[in-house]
Amino acid sequence: MSAILRKSAKSSEILGAIKSVVGDEPANLHEPSFEGNELEYLKECIESTFVSSSGKYVDKFEDELAAFTSAKFAISVVNGTAALHLSLILSGVKPGDEVLVPALSFVATANAVAYCGATPHFVDSNYETLGLDANRLREYLRVETKMVNGYCVNKKTQRIIRAVVPMHTFGHPVDIDGVLTLASDFNLQLIEDAAESLGSLYRNRHTGTFGSFGVLSFNGNKTITTGGGGAILTNNEEFATKAKHMSTTARLKHNWEFKHDEIGFNYRMPNLNAALGCAQMEKLPEKLQAKKRLFHKYSEAFSGIKGVKIFVEPQGSNSNYWLQTLILSEDNLELRDEILEVTNAQKIMTRPIWTPLSELRPYFSSPSMKLDVVKSLEKRLISLPSSPSLSLEKHA
Amino acid sequence: MSAILRKSAKSSEILGAIKSVVGDEPANLHEPSFEGNELEYLKECIESTFVSSSGKYVDKFEDELAAFTSAKFAISVVNGTAALHLSLILSGVKPGDEVLVPALSFVATANAVAYCGATPHFVDSNYETLGLDANRLREYLRVETKMVNGYCVNKKTQRIIRAVVPMHTFGHPVDIDGVLTLASDFNLQLIEDAAESLGSLYRNRHTGTFGSFGVLSFNGNKTITTGGGGAILTNNEEFATKAKHMSTTARLKHNWEFKHDEIGFNYRMPNLNAALGCAQMEKLPEKLQAKKRLFHKYSEAFSGIKGVKIFVEPQGSNSNYWLQTLILSEDNLELRDEILEVTNAQKIMTRPIWTPLSELRPYFSSPSMKLDVVKSLEKRLISLPSSPSLSLEKHA
Repeated sequence: MSAILRKSAKSSEILGAIKSVVGDEPANLHEPSFEGNELEYLKECIESTFVSSSGKYVDKFEDELAAFTSAKFAISVVNGTAALHLSLILSGVKPGDEVLVPALSFVATANAVAYCGATPHFVDSNYETLGLDANRLREYLRVETKMVNGYCVNKKTQRIIRAVVPMHTFGHPVDIDGVLTLASDFNLQLIEDAAESLGSLYRNRHTGTFGSFGVLSFNGNKTITTGGGGAILTNNEEFATKAKHMSTTARLKHNWEFKHDEIGFNYRMPNLNAALGCAQMEKLPEKLQAKKRLFHKYSEAFSGIKGVKIFVEPQGSNSNYWLQTLILSEDNLELRDEILEVTNAQKIMTRPIWTPLSELRPYFSSPSMKLDVVKSLEKRLISLPSSPSLSLEKHA
Repeated sequence: MSAILRKSAKSSEILGAIKSVVGDEPANLHEPSFEGNELEYLKECIESTFVSSSGKYVDKFEDELAAFTSAKFAISVVNGTAALHLSLILSGVKPGDEVLVPALSFVATANAVAYCGATPHFVDSNYETLGLDANRLREYLRVETKMVNGYCVNKKTQRIIRAVVPMHTFGHPVDIDGVLTLASDFNLQLIEDAAESLGSLYRNRHTGTFGSFGVLSFNGNKTITTGGGGAILTNNEEFATKAKHMSTTARLKHNWEFKHDEIGFNYRMPNLNAALGCAQMEKLPEKLQAKKRLFHKYSEAFSGIKGVKIFVEPQGSNSNYWLQTLILSEDNLELRDEILEVTNAQKIMTRPIWTPLSELRPYFSSPSMKLDVVKSLEKRLISLPSSPSLSLEKHA
C-alpha cells in the first residue's frame, strides 16, 4: 500500500490542522523573506565595487548584531560552522580533547569539534527544552570523570573534557543556569550554539551571550539570512580581537607587507552578504513577531487534537520559535512516518528531528552518556512549515 | 629624512611611468568591475528568495566554469582556501604527511596543508615563471628522499611527501610539464593552485586542469569575483561527486532524513554569490583582454627605463596577467622600498611580493629546500595597479 493510501483518520486530522494554518499551497519548512532594503544595499555594493573583504556593511552588520543581542562584540564569518570552529579554537580546545555536545543537533556542532582534532562527547536532552540536560549531565560527569590539575578528565579515555556546547534547539533556550554552574564546577569552557536562536531570550538576556562565545547562523533557513553566514558573539575584547584576526588569515596590519603570525582561516563574511544581513536586521522584530503569531495559530489549530501538541517554549525563556514543532505522545509514535508522508506528498514540508549525532558513521565510536530522552524525542518530533511569511502576508 | 624627500631621480621616473598608464587618480592594486548583469541576477535571487544553499546560479556558475576551462567538472565553494583544503583531503593528504608548496605564495597554500594535519615543505622558485622550479626540486628530492613502498619519503623527517601544489604566480603558468613528470616519478598527487590564473593557458590548455585537482579563487581582488568564493576543477567524476558531497556536510540525499556519512564541511557557495559569478563570467573575455592591454601599456611605459622591466609571461604559456609586476635588476635593489613609498604616498597602490612562507612564524620549523631564487625575487618584485578598468574605460 502506498504512503498516501495508508493515511489514517488521525493523520488526516493533523494534515487538516496544518493546512488550516499554512493554506493549501506548497509550503517549505523555512523560507527567507525580503521585504526591506535588501536590493538597495546590494545595489550599493555593486555600484561602490565593495562586494568582498572590505566595505561598510560588515562593520554595520556586526554593530547591529551586537546592539540587538547586547553582546559587547560580534564578528561576522562565512557560516555558523566557521563560527563554532573559531570559538572552539579560541576556547583552547586542542587535539586529543573531548567536548560535550548534545546528541540532538545539526551535524555542524560535532564537526566543528572534529576540525579541532578533538572528539565530541554526546549528552542527552531534556524534555522541557529539547536541549542538553544539565542535571543529568552533572550526575554523569560526577561518576565518569575526575578532576586532574583543575581539568575535568574522562576516566575511561583519560582525555581532558575541555568545553561544553549547548545548542538552543529550534530556538528554545536550554537550561543556561544549570549549564553555567556545571561549566564552573567542572572547569569547562562554555560555547553556546545559538545558530537557531537569534531573538531568543533566557531570563531576558539574549542567548549566545552567557558563555565565552555564542554562535549565530544566517543560512537561508534561519530567522534572518545573509545567503551563507554566521557570527561569533563575545563579551571579551581579547577574544573578539583574536576572532577577527583568526578569521582574516591572521594577517598583521601593514600597508603592503603580508605577514601572518598564526595558522589563520579565510572565514570573514563578504561585504555583499553582510549587506543582505543589514537589510534583514531591520525587519528582524517583525519576523520574530510573525513567528510568534505562527506559534499561536498552530497551538490553536492543534488544541483539539488528542495525542499531539505544539512544543511550547521552556519556562523563564522567550523563544524565537524558529522552527515550529509537533510533539507526539508516547502512544502515537506510529503516526510520525505517516504524517511525514502525507504532508510531504502534498508538498507541505515537514521533517523529523536530526538523526542523533551518535548514530552517524563518523561518530559511532565517540563517547556518550545514555541517550534515553534523545531516543524518545527522535520518534516523537515533527518540524512544521515555519516561514515568517506564513503569518506575515496572505495568512495574516 | 622622510620617505618622500628621499625619492631619487630613478623612483620619480618610475612613478611617472606608472602614472602614464594609470593616471593621476588613486589606484588600487586590483578592483573588481561590474558592467554586466550583476544587479539583475542579484535581483532575481531576492525575488525568488533563493539566496542560500539552493538555486539555479550555483549550477549555472559551475557549468560555465567547466565550459570555460574545459575541465570536466567544477565545484563552487566559499573561497579558494576551502577549495585547496578539500582538494588536499580528497588527494589523500593525511595528518603527518608533508606537501610540497612554493615558498612564494599567499599563506592559504600552506594553511590548507596545515588544516589537514600535514606539514608544508617549501620549494624554491624559478626566475622564468616565479613559480615552483621543477628541475631543481627534482634534484633536491633525489638527494633528500627515498621511495618506500612506492611513496616518496623525506629521509630527514621519515614522513611521506604526499602531494605537490604548484601555484601560478600572478597568473603566470608554472612549468607544468616539469611538474607532471616529477609528480609521476615521485608518486606525488598534483593539485594546481590556480587561484590567480583564471584565463591562463599552458600549451593552450587551461591552468588547473592538469593535476588531480585545480583550485580557483573569486575573492574581490581576482579577475572575476563572487564577493568571496572559490572552485575546485577536476576531470575525475568520482572526485567531483566526492568534492560536492564533502562541501555540503557529507549529507546523504533524502527528503527529510539528516544522515551524514563522513566529517564533511560547510563549504558550498551560496546562490547569491554564484549569481554575481555568472554575471562576471559573461564579461571574463573582456576583462582578460583589458588585462593584456594593460600589460602592453606598462611594457611600453617602462621600455626606456634601465634597471627595471615588466614581467613577461613564460614561454609556451598565455598568461591572464592578473597582477602586473615590475622586476628590478640586481643592482637596483635599493629602489624597492623607495618605489613602494613614493607610490603608496600618492595612493597609487603597489606592493612587494608576499613574505616567503618559510619566514612566517607558524612555518619557521617546516622543512624547506634552499630558497635562493625566492630570496632574490623577494627583493626585486613590485606589483602594480592591475584593475581591468584601468584599460577598459577612461584609460582605453
